[in-house]
Amino acid sequence: MGSPGGERVTAAVMIIGDEILSGRTQDTNLRDIARYLGVLGIDLAEARTVPDVHEEIVAALNALRGRYDYVITTGGIGPTHDDITADAVAAAFGVELEEHPEIMAMMRARWGDDLNAARRRMARVPVGGVLVKNPVQGPPGFMIGNVFVLAGVPTIMRGMLEDVGPRLRGGMVTIARTLRVEGSGEGTIAAPLEAVAKAHPEMSLGSYPFFNPEGFGSNLVLRSRNADELARAVADLTAALAAAGIEAVREVVEG
Amino acid sequence: MGSPGGERVTAAVMIIGDEILSGRTQDTNLRDIARYLGVLGIDLAEARTVPDVHEEIVAALNALRGRYDYVITTGGIGPTHDDITADAVAAAFGVELEEHPEIMAMMRARWGDDLNAARRRMARVPVGGVLVKNPVQGPPGFMIGNVFVLAGVPTIMRGMLEDVGPRLRGGMVTIARTLRVEGSGEGTIAAPLEAVAKAHPEMSLGSYPFFNPEGFGSNLVLRSRNADELARAVADLTAALAAAGIEAVREVVEG
Repeated sequence: MGSPGGERVTAAVMIIGDEILSGRTQDTNLRDIARYLGVLGIDLAEARTVPDVHEEIVAALNALRGRYDYVITTGGIGPTHDDITADAVAAAFGVELEEHPEIMAMMRARWGDDLNAARRRMARVPVGGVLVKNPVQGPPGFMIGNVFVLAGVPTIMRGMLEDVGPRLRGGMVTIARTLRVEGSGEGTIAAPLEAVAKAHPEMSLGSYPFFNPEGFGSNLVLRSRNADELARAVADLTAALAAAGIEAVREVVEG
Repeated sequence: MGSPGGERVTAAVMIIGDEILSGRTQDTNLRDIARYLGVLGIDLAEARTVPDVHEEIVAALNALRGRYDYVITTGGIGPTHDDITADAVAAAFGVELEEHPEIMAMMRARWGDDLNAARRRMARVPVGGVLVKNPVQGPPGFMIGNVFVLAGVPTIMRGMLEDVGPRLRGGMVTIARTLRVEGSGEGTIAAPLEAVAKAHPEMSLGSYPFFNPEGFGSNLVLRSRNADELARAVADLTAALAAAGIEAVREVVEG
């Protein structure tokens, strides 16, 4: 993974499901996919959450797949009437759906005479689609063009991701370091932070404040594709904060 | 709240922040806003997560505000250099930013001589903007046109939402009931579920499977703007599941 050329590789996530937009379910797939892509050096550039409405899924997918190197969708591939992702992806690519022989064989082995019409819905894959393994349970996902269609259930989605990674062209891996400032708010640290950000324009430097019963402060996250530049920026930022009288700074190692 | 005419009122959420797209931070604002809007009878129709990039924020905001009745943004209104939401919203509306006299007065009272340039950034509001109260801490958000610009820190965002609700024209309130099926997978319940969904086309009927150490099954969520129709649909679904031999069904009252 990681292309030495440092070319930027981009992806978008499309979360499909009324249950997210109604607030019934807290999505966690976006974060899991973002972290997984980050390790591969792929920038997650945008995410959209769309309802279980055919036209909405088709339109969003076509917008995203034309713009980014990869699109990963989650949700809507089960057996019920509201699972319409395969239909919408086929429509977006202008192809038909077909029962995939490999999924049908798996399902016949699993269900025998109980392989009803609802379950057979899950065997439908757009023509030209390639399966994405599901190591958890249930039928596989699929890939067509630059689009990966995964389950919405988080444990299954994470399992499927493991079969997505090896098919992605990785960008340069981004590395991150975090400095935690305690007892100083963003208004105090903004000036030294901005000076360092300007001196290191190729890096990402974010400030994420926290407030909790133990106190307040901010986590400053420095992110670069270049380890040397990152080390210089961390040193510069530490010095700039100290020069501004902000001493309660320590590096956080994230688990 | 709740328009008797039953007109559909729509909203979109725009989450602004590299920390969400890098996977560093788990967003929870989408769910909180979705639930808040649900109580007001407003349909959250779409959500987008965009990076801290001026052009991306402007383009997404213009797409969303033209399409939905309301847009709620979260994130990017602090004092640091990566807080560019106010600039982007002003650009989207084609207006200038100005230091809002009410925020400046608050900040002078709070900071006195420590009111530095970074903090003054947070007083900038697009011309024509109206403040959204911040009952938690720090400066207010603002509203311009059909767009509400809120903080990204969840506790502050939720506080600001309380000053958004009274300004929204509510739709008909949607009510929900949940039937929990235990020991039957989606493949088994899909047929009775679909029959009931077809018989009640004005309702939303979703199936959300669960798998955990205690067992598996699915939560069937019925949602309608009409209490009588909802009661009929719950009765129909209970009967249809029983007719399919699925007996382990109980109603879940969500907290």
